[in-house]
Amino acid sequence: MDTRISCVLILFSYGCCSHLYLTDEYEFKTVFRGVRDRNGYIKARNEVILAESNMRIGRDVVLDKTEQRVNDILMKYKELEINKSRTLNGAPFPPSIDFLVSKPMVEKSQVFQIIKLMPKGAALHLHDCSMVDLNWLVKNATYRENCYMCVNVNYTVYFKFFGGTPPSNPGCPWKSVKTERAKARNVDEFDRMLYMNMSLITPDPRKAYPTIDVVWDRFSQTLDQANGLINYAPVFADYFYEALNEFNLDNVQYLEFRGLFPEVYELDGSTKDRNWVVKTYNDLFEKFTADHKHEFSGGKMIYSGIRVVPEIDILNQVKEAIHYRQLYPDHFAGYDLVGQEDPGVPLVKYLDALLYPSEQTPPVDLPYFFHAGETDWEGTPTDNNLIDAVLLNTSRIGHGYAIVKHPQVMKMVKERNIAVEVNPISNQVLLLLSDLRNHPAAELVAQDFPVVISADDPAVWGAQGLSYDFYMAFMALSGETTDLRLLKKLAINSIQYSAMTPIEKSKALNLWRQKWDAFIQRMLHQVNQSGSFPLNPFG
Amino acid sequence: MDTRISCVLILFSYGCCSHLYLTDEYEFKTVFRGVRDRNGYIKARNEVILAESNMRIGRDVVLDKTEQRVNDILMKYKELEINKSRTLNGAPFPPSIDFLVSKPMVEKSQVFQIIKLMPKGAALHLHDCSMVDLNWLVKNATYRENCYMCVNVNYTVYFKFFGGTPPSNPGCPWKSVKTERAKARNVDEFDRMLYMNMSLITPDPRKAYPTIDVVWDRFSQTLDQANGLINYAPVFADYFYEALNEFNLDNVQYLEFRGLFPEVYELDGSTKDRNWVVKTYNDLFEKFTADHKHEFSGGKMIYSGIRVVPEIDILNQVKEAIHYRQLYPDHFAGYDLVGQEDPGVPLVKYLDALLYPSEQTPPVDLPYFFHAGETDWEGTPTDNNLIDAVLLNTSRIGHGYAIVKHPQVMKMVKERNIAVEVNPISNQVLLLLSDLRNHPAAELVAQDFPVVISADDPAVWGAQGLSYDFYMAFMALSGETTDLRLLKKLAINSIQYSAMTPIEKSKALNLWRQKWDAFIQRMLHQVNQSGSFPLNPFG
Repeated sequence: MDTRISCVLILFSYGCCSHLYLTDEYEFKTVFRGVRDRNGYIKARNEVILAESNMRIGRDVVLDKTEQRVNDILMKYKELEINKSRTLNGAPFPPSIDFLVSKPMVEKSQVFQIIKLMPKGAALHLHDCSMVDLNWLVKNATYRENCYMCVNVNYTVYFKFFGGTPPSNPGCPWKSVKTERAKARNVDEFDRMLYMNMSLITPDPRKAYPTIDVVWDRFSQTLDQANGLINYAPVFADYFYEALNEFNLDNVQYLEFRGLFPEVYELDGSTKDRNWVVKTYNDLFEKFTADHKHEFSGGKMIYSGIRVVPEIDILNQVKEAIHYRQLYPDHFAGYDLVGQEDPGVPLVKYLDALLYPSEQTPPVDLPYFFHAGETDWEGTPTDNNLIDAVLLNTSRIGHGYAIVKHPQVMKMVKERNIAVEVNPISNQVLLLLSDLRNHPAAELVAQDFPVVISADDPAVWGAQGLSYDFYMAFMALSGETTDLRLLKKLAINSIQYSAMTPIEKSKALNLWRQKWDAFIQRMLHQVNQSGSFPLNPFG
Repeated sequence: MDTRISCVLILFSYGCCSHLYLTDEYEFKTVFRGVRDRNGYIKARNEVILAESNMRIGRDVVLDKTEQRVNDILMKYKELEINKSRTLNGAPFPPSIDFLVSKPMVEKSQVFQIIKLMPKGAALHLHDCSMVDLNWLVKNATYRENCYMCVNVNYTVYFKFFGGTPPSNPGCPWKSVKTERAKARNVDEFDRMLYMNMSLITPDPRKAYPTIDVVWDRFSQTLDQANGLINYAPVFADYFYEALNEFNLDNVQYLEFRGLFPEVYELDGSTKDRNWVVKTYNDLFEKFTADHKHEFSGGKMIYSGIRVVPEIDILNQVKEAIHYRQLYPDHFAGYDLVGQEDPGVPLVKYLDALLYPSEQTPPVDLPYFFHAGETDWEGTPTDNNLIDAVLLNTSRIGHGYAIVKHPQVMKMVKERNIAVEVNPISNQVLLLLSDLRNHPAAELVAQDFPVVISADDPAVWGAQGLSYDFYMAFMALSGETTDLRLLKKLAINSIQYSAMTPIEKSKALNLWRQKWDAFIQRMLHQVNQSGSFPLNPFG
């Protein structure tokens, strides 16, 4: 029966409203279309594969001959490592396992070792008190004079520095770290205990953190624990300098972080105000960049409120942010709101405060960098933060995990070229998903969305720098055949979507290109010397 | 500085190839766009929300007044149940937990109870030996005369019927089920043991099934266990009739299943060939539909090879399928390949066999219904099955789990209106993902892709019919505010994307509409009678 006739029949028999449901598009397909023979088929198939390759991040990158040789090496290892896991009952695939457990597996990966060497550009999504390896806090900060610790009933360790005798602290009495360490049977064990106590690391994360709320609770606690050390003025400055140092050592040349700009204390009980904090960050960006002028491009801070406070506080922060941006144009980028998004106040509830800059005459320039869509709950106020972030003209979106459920937001993000800051390990450890191959950013990569890869709070889960997250992006947010072009483009993206001025970006890209060429040469040299892999990236 | 000038500067300083990376699109955004005041903002915001609502499955459904009243009740419960879990440290959210554990929670849901009552249309993705509640096999099949069981060293129970004394079966000696049951302390416990032994159900799925290969291994074993009972000729026919019965009782009026068309045995050791099997299915579709002519619309079988055999076997099956389609045009729909996709042979390796129908002169009509993309491994031969399914002109895609990683395949699927058969619980139990809120079909729902919801192998994980999977689609593959329009459209989709002829579809839709009206009336009546919920759907 002719399709059109049969559809008309259906229309009749189904009644007046059926045009909503029945068109001949819905006709069940029994006819063959297109190619019928093997050759034509293979040609059509290759066209689809090529079309998808030409949609992916990195599609516009052309590798030269030397880069192609390095790519061959990289891809040999990528394929080897994936296939080792893809075999029936094969080896565990690190990105599919909670990073709190898989970290040692990642470190054995040759792909990871290559990524460590690679100049990765900029880290654009970090937080003030979780950038530095906790080992530094343990081995440096807790070894300083006047450092005290207390252990509460839940065996959680807190720290503080005191000039004289510490005050009474019922439930968690202060003891000198120096004395406690001296009493310990084994200093390394003692230090290891401090490290573990301040981190999320645990042998059985599913058991320790059965829900997202439980893991966020413990996560916030670890930040509190670290802050007792970090917010001591002398440590505060050193901590930030060390953060820049660690990222630089991981071949990251620029960073932007969200900062709460906390009160910082001195031994005598006096405190430093927010102005001191912002000036300290500004000056340390300057100092570190000057100390490493052939390696490092600088960075910027993003002032952040916590998404639980009354709107009046947000308004005051917005005004402060405007002030700091005028005061420190080189190192102050804008404003954001942080904290667990699901139980937090949605952006729209802070609308008047957040519209303040645009409602001035003339409008005041304050770039936003909103966290949005860090949730599994679709169609909820939290989920709608994605809409508000875009309508509030955010410069980038922090996480944007839920974006693929929002086709209109996806369109706007692509049209307006708003970068999505993807932090794969964070999303896994903080329980948005378990297997990173299911991360929605795989689709953003496949469609060349403006994506940057970052690390969020690497210290808390025992990562350092960007390399672990770049490894996850390369191995799990892209396919087995996706190659060096993706990595190169992700590095370039990170500079392009930074808050740098055009001139700053130009300089940063020049420096990055030099680093990239050196990386390619180093890789080739190493292979030529040893005749083969494995590389020793620490050599 | 003017943007254009600064970009030219960047271009210069970065060198000749930089046009690949730098356009002024990449410029960091500091200017405000669009609305600046609260009213304009809220208007723009509502437009985005409306735009997304108008992109979703169900966008073209208009509810009348009575439907709207039922929708209000449904949405009250949806919101209540979601918010109970969304609260900080709230109740577990069933779709986020392995169905092997969450099933009793689902059954407590009022939303689930409403969905059970709803006429759901057709179940289009099922398999021959996993459609009927295992309790039926235990309580009916194993109670029949001549039924024997054996328990192997791994405590796995197998079954077979024998006319005389069973043959020696070293390692797994046959014993009469009747005798064993009589010896048991407690018959219910004995039967419960048989049930559990044949299912995947276990209190700690993560421990029992640590990997996808382990769960597939056990899954295949449960199918083998059931087949010993099902493939006994008298049970075979009754099993299939019972399958139609159970889906009918779950308010499903039509079904299509993939069948391996196995050898069926008689007590005397003789066997029934494939022709008998196909005729039996055909006749039982006819009989059940005749027995339930005001309730049931019928069904079709899809012959399926296992994706491990040599190509010559596939070619022979394709030829058989062409033959059966000519012989039983009313109940034979086409061909597919089944089995764990990752370790299986990719479709492209069977290309010549699968192109056979289209290469005949004139081309022969054999609709395909390929399983494709039931994988987490992107960019692999398995993942590329999605490309081959579409190029081989598949009528629907089984699972299509990986489709969101394939933008070109997505385009083709939308243009050609190829339905994606989504089986949420199957994907969770068989470990493609853990939390169903991360299921990629959420995005297909958000963009009104041609989606149908099905149940795959419900018996194996203790589900019955379609309701459990519809519940998951409603609660986890769509947002909190997505309503009855989605459910109604999913039911209509299931008929539209079936392999029915236009005339058959027309009849089925008429019947479905009557059922739908009755459902709406029943819901209103129940609320009017009792004054409130909870409904008792079994009353």
